[in-house]
Amino acid sequence: MLIYLDNNATTRPSQTVIDAVLPYLGDCYFNASSAPFTGADKPRVDAARALAHLLNAEEPNCFAFTSGATESNNWVLMSSCRGKGTGRVIISAIEHPSITEPARELAKGGLDLIEVPVDQDGVIRLDALSNALRDDTLFVSVIAANNETGVLQPIQEIGRIIRERCPAALFHTDATQAVGKNAIDLQGKWHDIDLLSFSGHKCHAPKGVGGIYVRPGIDIAPMMLGGGQQQGLRPGTLNTAGLAGLAQAAHEARADMSEHIQSLRNEFEQRLIDIFPDVIIHSVRAPRLPNTTFFSLPGIVAGDAVDILGSAGILVGTGAACSSGAIHPSKTLMAMHVAHEIALSALRVSLSRFSTAEDISRLLQALQTLPRKAIASVGALPKPAP
Amino acid sequence: MLIYLDNNATTRPSQTVIDAVLPYLGDCYFNASSAPFTGADKPRVDAARALAHLLNAEEPNCFAFTSGATESNNWVLMSSCRGKGTGRVIISAIEHPSITEPARELAKGGLDLIEVPVDQDGVIRLDALSNALRDDTLFVSVIAANNETGVLQPIQEIGRIIRERCPAALFHTDATQAVGKNAIDLQGKWHDIDLLSFSGHKCHAPKGVGGIYVRPGIDIAPMMLGGGQQQGLRPGTLNTAGLAGLAQAAHEARADMSEHIQSLRNEFEQRLIDIFPDVIIHSVRAPRLPNTTFFSLPGIVAGDAVDILGSAGILVGTGAACSSGAIHPSKTLMAMHVAHEIALSALRVSLSRFSTAEDISRLLQALQTLPRKAIASVGALPKPAP
Repeated sequence: MLIYLDNNATTRPSQTVIDAVLPYLGDCYFNASSAPFTGADKPRVDAARALAHLLNAEEPNCFAFTSGATESNNWVLMSSCRGKGTGRVIISAIEHPSITEPARELAKGGLDLIEVPVDQDGVIRLDALSNALRDDTLFVSVIAANNETGVLQPIQEIGRIIRERCPAALFHTDATQAVGKNAIDLQGKWHDIDLLSFSGHKCHAPKGVGGIYVRPGIDIAPMMLGGGQQQGLRPGTLNTAGLAGLAQAAHEARADMSEHIQSLRNEFEQRLIDIFPDVIIHSVRAPRLPNTTFFSLPGIVAGDAVDILGSAGILVGTGAACSSGAIHPSKTLMAMHVAHEIALSALRVSLSRFSTAEDISRLLQALQTLPRKAIASVGALPKPAP
Repeated sequence: MLIYLDNNATTRPSQTVIDAVLPYLGDCYFNASSAPFTGADKPRVDAARALAHLLNAEEPNCFAFTSGATESNNWVLMSSCRGKGTGRVIISAIEHPSITEPARELAKGGLDLIEVPVDQDGVIRLDALSNALRDDTLFVSVIAANNETGVLQPIQEIGRIIRERCPAALFHTDATQAVGKNAIDLQGKWHDIDLLSFSGHKCHAPKGVGGIYVRPGIDIAPMMLGGGQQQGLRPGTLNTAGLAGLAQAAHEARADMSEHIQSLRNEFEQRLIDIFPDVIIHSVRAPRLPNTTFFSLPGIVAGDAVDILGSAGILVGTGAACSSGAIHPSKTLMAMHVAHEIALSALRVSLSRFSTAEDISRLLQALQTLPRKAIASVGALPKPAP
């Protein structure tokens, strides 16, 4: 049995989520556009209701469903900015590639792109954001919780600054890592958010289903056109089984916001510091997700360490999950001006409600067996292309 | 137990498909980008191999996976044509809305769109296609098998005409209804196809997974940008469970091309003609999918008939599945110049390998109970908006 400590990459659907999925693979396999008595549209309705409850949205109709956050992020950015000719797009320096890459593509098309820096703790610099906001700002996107450090960005303050300076700009957050792990209140502290992306598989739903929240009154053009499903906003036959799983996962998500995960994480960090006095826990001074520890053991080569831990049956992450396998220093740590050598030794441990104290102990034991090189030799590793 | 005769809308995953899906919801829930020993990338590899075998593609690497055919169709059209400034796009008059609508959007952006008419049997008019082809033709898209009539378009002849007239034009087919129902040979009769779209749920895979075939040597830009999955062609965390189901469904698809379905369909049509001498079976003279009968019983109001049959536990389609519920005459039948009144009475029966002679008998009995109005009163139904 693997010890899975890479829950920011993906999560395990609970048995109750699987139980919710199964009827829609089996007896209720109908098309959600078929006759209402088949019940095949119920998962969409249930998922929208569960998310509206979880995120305190105005109404279930605020949600449209996609194949996941990569689609959601591309959609909101492209739909809001493509074809605008001129104007400014602002993102943080620590966005997921599904924001950064389409934003840079828009910049090639003539839009003015600003990537707002973060401080050494990985928190967006509000002064720099404020300076970047101009009258022609179309779109601002700030990741709610970074996938590597787990740092929670100050969404409320960012919203206030945007509304003061550029009331017409759209404010989007990629909340892929935050939904289900952290309290979100779209009618409270997050009331300035216009658009929010999420992905089911980061919070124990199946892979292949996610969505966007669209604030009532905000218009967003579809990215795809077709059969009219979801009021034409996102056509395509609905993934009913995935949505049934998402609905159940959203119901259960409050369990992930209990103190269990955070206390386990805190215990891990304390023991990590006790065993490795030279450990560097990134962003430790910033508000973070309760499940994430991103840390460097100087002299460890992260890619090798992940392989060694993997062969011992322990899965952890290194840098961005989506680029696991390629040994480049974390883009997030580079934005935080962490030394290259330290960045190359960064491991990410991300817990879920299924994580146990035993998992943590096994990981700590295994970490002690990792080979550590002198920093000088680590420093001699080839630098990545600029 | 419902009698399900609407398999062109969606299909039931077989138990073996569900069995293939389950491990990837459960113990192998890992991210396909995680360490190879987790086995989480196997469903993608398996699905690509199974599709390459089913469609006789050059190699598994020709396939990229999406959320379904609506995404695939939008992707190929937008990626091939958007931003080109000028040029011609040619589609048939009987495409799915996920081709027609993005193509019309491209036309608004300055491209010249030609919708090639079909004859009274619903077959594309090759003379009109030939006349439409110009040196600046960028893209030609013809649906392989129409979702309503089931008519198989002459892909081989269309390919030959395109290659003679416009060798550089991309030739795409939306094969959503054809894959798994009809023999496809991408290195044989279909060797002029550059791009092909498909959707898993039309051939007994779960909903939420589909893809495109890209002929080796053809370049297609991604529609979304992000985490580098699928060589960056279609980023986003892979829907491993859906892909495992797609792989199994593709393995099993040959069962759908057996004679069982076709003989059942032929028996249904013969009995339909015997019982209702005035029945009109659309496209009966054209090559059709083996599972589809699209027919009009004059005087029946299709929307009402679907409801009545549904309340008797029998699910059939009317017009395009994606717009079920709205009573507009089928776009396909309008393109075939079928009389408006006849089009409004059109029902679609589409079988699968799970269909039985008993299903057909029950349907035929139920059809005899449907109220039929005089044609004059049907003719008085409100015409749809132009």
